[in-house]
Amino acid sequence: MTSTDPIANLATLIRCPSVTPAEGGALAALAAMLQPLGFAVERMVAREPGTPDIENLYARLGTGGPHLMFAGHTDVVPVGDEAAWTHGPFAAEIADGQMFGRGAVDMKGGIACFVAAVARHIGKHGAPDGSISFLITGDEEGPAVNGTVKLLEWAAARGEKWDACLVGEPTNPDALGDMIKIGRRGSVSGTVTVHGVQGHAAYPHLADNPVRGVIALARALMHPPFDAGTADFQPSNLEVTTIDVGNRATNVIPAKASAGFNIRFNDAWSAETVMAEIVRRLDAAARDETLRPGRPPIRYHIAWAERPSHVFLTRDDRLIASLSGAVAAVTGRQPALSTTGGTSDARFIKDYCPVVEFGLVGQTMHMVDERVALADLGTLTDIYETFIARWFGDARS
Amino acid sequence: MTSTDPIANLATLIRCPSVTPAEGGALAALAAMLQPLGFAVERMVAREPGTPDIENLYARLGTGGPHLMFAGHTDVVPVGDEAAWTHGPFAAEIADGQMFGRGAVDMKGGIACFVAAVARHIGKHGAPDGSISFLITGDEEGPAVNGTVKLLEWAAARGEKWDACLVGEPTNPDALGDMIKIGRRGSVSGTVTVHGVQGHAAYPHLADNPVRGVIALARALMHPPFDAGTADFQPSNLEVTTIDVGNRATNVIPAKASAGFNIRFNDAWSAETVMAEIVRRLDAAARDETLRPGRPPIRYHIAWAERPSHVFLTRDDRLIASLSGAVAAVTGRQPALSTTGGTSDARFIKDYCPVVEFGLVGQTMHMVDERVALADLGTLTDIYETFIARWFGDARS
Repeated sequence: MTSTDPIANLATLIRCPSVTPAEGGALAALAAMLQPLGFAVERMVAREPGTPDIENLYARLGTGGPHLMFAGHTDVVPVGDEAAWTHGPFAAEIADGQMFGRGAVDMKGGIACFVAAVARHIGKHGAPDGSISFLITGDEEGPAVNGTVKLLEWAAARGEKWDACLVGEPTNPDALGDMIKIGRRGSVSGTVTVHGVQGHAAYPHLADNPVRGVIALARALMHPPFDAGTADFQPSNLEVTTIDVGNRATNVIPAKASAGFNIRFNDAWSAETVMAEIVRRLDAAARDETLRPGRPPIRYHIAWAERPSHVFLTRDDRLIASLSGAVAAVTGRQPALSTTGGTSDARFIKDYCPVVEFGLVGQTMHMVDERVALADLGTLTDIYETFIARWFGDARS
Repeated sequence: MTSTDPIANLATLIRCPSVTPAEGGALAALAAMLQPLGFAVERMVAREPGTPDIENLYARLGTGGPHLMFAGHTDVVPVGDEAAWTHGPFAAEIADGQMFGRGAVDMKGGIACFVAAVARHIGKHGAPDGSISFLITGDEEGPAVNGTVKLLEWAAARGEKWDACLVGEPTNPDALGDMIKIGRRGSVSGTVTVHGVQGHAAYPHLADNPVRGVIALARALMHPPFDAGTADFQPSNLEVTTIDVGNRATNVIPAKASAGFNIRFNDAWSAETVMAEIVRRLDAAARDETLRPGRPPIRYHIAWAERPSHVFLTRDDRLIASLSGAVAAVTGRQPALSTTGGTSDARFIKDYCPVVEFGLVGQTMHMVDERVALADLGTLTDIYETFIARWFGDARS
């Protein structure tokens, strides 16, 4: 059974050009690895008006509890400048002890290792006393509308219940064993549009320059900091990621200006309280006359960009101990238990069961020449195999 | 000789669709008015790589001194939403005592009145003891590259010298007689580009958000005010007229951000000193850590957008007295001697002779339904005719 080899598994997956929203053969290849191991594999196509149809996969081995879910995605981000790649982005070529290809670390590599770990576990111990499932989407890098959220709803509606989940996203900043993610900050985005009065730059008193307003509001969003961090989380941070006016006439005062922002917030806040604080800051800054002496308050409106991502922290000590113990046993290093970084599909899974994240080293993700050390694939497979044994062993005790 | 009627003159000119850079027949129509009055009319085409060829006109009556120049332009700004006009923008229709049409006040109306004033003066007194010339460009509303500057150079190279100039731009805010312009603020424009480091919004410490930098720099350009005004000028004023990033991904910190600005500065500054002050403010703000705690100075560069417009103040008491006296004699009102508002081609003429500006009421310039009261055309013609008589009378005394 070749699926015990993570390198072969990964080469197979990389050779499927599954740039979101294309399935690219990747889920079919995964199904072909899992079925011989005894998994019942189901493909679920999610549809939503205005978005591409997305293929997803759910596979389960076993029928009883305890039930461990492995979650991830086979879709990948675009290759960017293909000519700049040293090796073809879908060729899975090996050079200098590394495999090159889009998705090598984010996150076909994680899937390849978990498949190999399960295959090895079965080879040594038989099927675990419980269930293992793969919940794999093709829509993590895209709009994420037809992916993990719908797949979870679909599976839960069929009665699926899980006791714990491991997400195989790359979590290690520099070396395998650095970091397990046990929570994530929340995320809220929005756009503030300031309405002014157009006019000639030589007659500013007849106009109301919305650039003055947008500077005041954008500044108030970023300063002062929202908090100094909490016991489990780094400080919340807001970045104004764009300001746009689009006025090409230097002698014209424009009619409006907009600023887009994103805040990553910790567990001192909920999405609701952080949105209220943003509005409070905007309202206060709208009355600041520093840049608009003697003027009435800035007229603005705010459009929230998307559903907020809620902050969460996993407090399942047994799950965390199984994973960090496996990392320490294989690598000799004690991983940090972190809540840093961006959002992941773990933010959806946490509503169904405790969730932790551990995968490869993320340094080359989304870059030209994305690649993974072959040695890391072996090590991660060992960690996953040890984790499976410990988690089921612990679960039975 | 019909050119004594400013209403007829203006109708003829409005019916020429001379939107910059098109001549539209307007200069030919003007030539046809001037030649019967004895003017030697010359058409001069100015060319510059990368800009449209522009037709200009220079016409002189008389050969000796003193020499009075009337300066202006027959080109007009685009009509905008033509469907929104009550009357066709090139139809010169009359309704409710007003003539409608693009250029009615800016500034075919001024030309129409000055032609009528000269024709009436000649009809009553014969040609003046001296010279009158028309220096009329077709490139005032456009890039202004092939207009007044080149026409002045071309005429001066042929030995033309002038003792005074009246520019016929609309100078009155509310009613005819409000305001003569005797100087203009200078104008400098530029674009500041801030270079940051692109990255993920969840990892701001690995990036350097140029929006933070551009907010700090743009704010420093507008605050505090540059000065409180001078004896002859209102306060200098800088407007940041655009900020642009163009980042559509809310989870991405962009690589750069730019801000365009324009300053109108008074005679407390020269173009050189105001540019130095702008650089001083930018350099100081680049070290401000409020929005970028612990970060190195903001990396930026500045691109000056165009040749600066130099500030000037006309101190020719006789010229000013002739004009303000004519305004007072005809309207019974004492016009303000102002240096407010935007730049005009007077900024080029002031290098050749003293220059003042007086024309119609500017309220509808550049707007849909640009229009002029027929009564104002008569009054302005009276003022111009009185000015001509006084200036030549004064010049001879």
